[in-house]
Amino acid sequence: MTTFHIAPVDHHITAALQHKIDNKTKPLGALGQLEGLALKIGRIQQTLTPTLSKPAMVIFAGDHGIAHEGVSPFPQEVTYQMVFNFLQGGAAINVFARQHNMDIRVVDAGVNFDFNGHPGLIHAKVAMGTKSFLHEAAMTQAECETAIEKGATIVKALHEQGCNVIGFGEMGIANTSAASVIMSLLCNIPLEQCIGRGTGLDDEGLIRKKVILAEAMIRHNRIEKTPLNVLSTFGGFEIAMMCGAMLQAAASGMVILADGFITTAALLVASGMYPAVLDYTIFTHQSNEQGHRLMLAHMKAVPLLDLGMRLGEGTGAAVAYPVIQAAVNFLNEMASFESAGVSNKA
Amino acid sequence: MTTFHIAPVDHHITAALQHKIDNKTKPLGALGQLEGLALKIGRIQQTLTPTLSKPAMVIFAGDHGIAHEGVSPFPQEVTYQMVFNFLQGGAAINVFARQHNMDIRVVDAGVNFDFNGHPGLIHAKVAMGTKSFLHEAAMTQAECETAIEKGATIVKALHEQGCNVIGFGEMGIANTSAASVIMSLLCNIPLEQCIGRGTGLDDEGLIRKKVILAEAMIRHNRIEKTPLNVLSTFGGFEIAMMCGAMLQAAASGMVILADGFITTAALLVASGMYPAVLDYTIFTHQSNEQGHRLMLAHMKAVPLLDLGMRLGEGTGAAVAYPVIQAAVNFLNEMASFESAGVSNKA
Repeated sequence: MTTFHIAPVDHHITAALQHKIDNKTKPLGALGQLEGLALKIGRIQQTLTPTLSKPAMVIFAGDHGIAHEGVSPFPQEVTYQMVFNFLQGGAAINVFARQHNMDIRVVDAGVNFDFNGHPGLIHAKVAMGTKSFLHEAAMTQAECETAIEKGATIVKALHEQGCNVIGFGEMGIANTSAASVIMSLLCNIPLEQCIGRGTGLDDEGLIRKKVILAEAMIRHNRIEKTPLNVLSTFGGFEIAMMCGAMLQAAASGMVILADGFITTAALLVASGMYPAVLDYTIFTHQSNEQGHRLMLAHMKAVPLLDLGMRLGEGTGAAVAYPVIQAAVNFLNEMASFESAGVSNKA
Repeated sequence: MTTFHIAPVDHHITAALQHKIDNKTKPLGALGQLEGLALKIGRIQQTLTPTLSKPAMVIFAGDHGIAHEGVSPFPQEVTYQMVFNFLQGGAAINVFARQHNMDIRVVDAGVNFDFNGHPGLIHAKVAMGTKSFLHEAAMTQAECETAIEKGATIVKALHEQGCNVIGFGEMGIANTSAASVIMSLLCNIPLEQCIGRGTGLDDEGLIRKKVILAEAMIRHNRIEKTPLNVLSTFGGFEIAMMCGAMLQAAASGMVILADGFITTAALLVASGMYPAVLDYTIFTHQSNEQGHRLMLAHMKAVPLLDLGMRLGEGTGAAVAYPVIQAAVNFLNEMASFESAGVSNKA
């Protein structure tokens, strides 16, 4: 298994950053969460003048054996169809990334479809989808490690091209099922509270999903609950690859944008392995998927936005990106009381 | 008093807009509040392909006689000093408007300073600040009507230049005091719950503010509580001008971006006169100023963002602008299930 060298962020610069923020022409604390963001990004980059450079969204797609057990209202073929939609620029994430000049990379992490070397796609397929974890482990430990390494390689290349801020998206029919079980085991929260409607299950479908996932958890109750074991037993290739991507992003000192239910599940695994990854992470959006609120609370995370979205694809991170840019901009561009000749508080 | 012709928005187009939204390649409702925004803007513009054109922020500055009673920790001179900061591009609102290519107009609505024809400033001064409403009405009814008309004129000119989406900011030391009393009288909420720390009062200052405003309300308790009377008795010139600006924006069919405590107080007055102005209004940000939450609840408004900001200047609207643009973009640019060849729900 690859080792990642993730240094906890150095806090010595905090006082100087806070001083700079407090001397901007505004009441103390009046920019709310933007001030915390400026502080965090300044710390990650160890500078009073941080910049966001070549922002990127990497979308990992993978299929799930559990999809065949009837846990999603959409058929599995939607995964590969949506990959084509990403490549053609018609999905929600394309629209939002285009709006903010974010680079998009689409990765075949393990889709059950032969893309036949399609240009524009990053080919990192581990297998034609995972096995159904209702019956066996979703992937072998070797496959899981391969996925993590491939994710890291993709991010390393982006970093070498000058990218220092990165968000992650995913596509994989049934991947809320995988994320729910991962969450339950790594957060120690009853499974029932971790399961939601995903792409839109009705009441009957929701009950079926709960029954199936409970049965699957019982089948694998003898595994040791390490992050890696939980990931390989229940995860998807897109989740494992995202986990490796996040670890590499932190190791490279990049700002990580985390958003929805699946992405945060990957982060749960990553931070279970290397807690310092959270020093580099900004939580951008509270998903409307049941369970995400609890997951964020478990991580003591306060997300920037709560727009009721539950689409995946990294859309929460992309929609939040300008708010993060706003934090960097005020730190760099706002006048101080002194420079503007404005009287401070009496 | 000028009459505004504000037509309630026609709802016939709603079904067609909803159909378009529901056929985008995403689960039903998965874009959360962005979907409601797309619906609202499509209705305002009466089209399935709305656009946001030449977005503008208009910042109204005015001084308040009540500032001399010790209700703010900042001296009154900060109002004109911040006007210069706006003109030099160093304030928070400059940073955020620049980020989103929003045009900024700075208006002297009634600052207690002679700007001497400074170019770049819109000169619409009604007087050198209001009177202290602890002792007399802040302004005469004629002054109030003049302010409303001048606000309307400024917006009319912007609309003629192609602007169809507009946010409003304000600057005026002590204007949270004015807004608190306006809120209490127009929402019928006890004054105590409408008063907060403004730019950062300490506990003692907060008590003093509450005593002074309670005394002021008693002094004027015989006035008839019409929106116009409340505005002229307690308001500031920047609040009255913003009210006229909002009414004209609605009359011109523009999208209005409302944000913080003062701006929403102006909207309370405007919608008290012409309720249909709310058909054109998007609530962009929940301020951290005590009272704003109650004010929004009174108007049954759910704001897009809650970033803990309490700066004024229209910063909430400017930071939220890309989220509103995102709503328009997904409606115009996302593929449908049919066009992308993606299977819909079984």
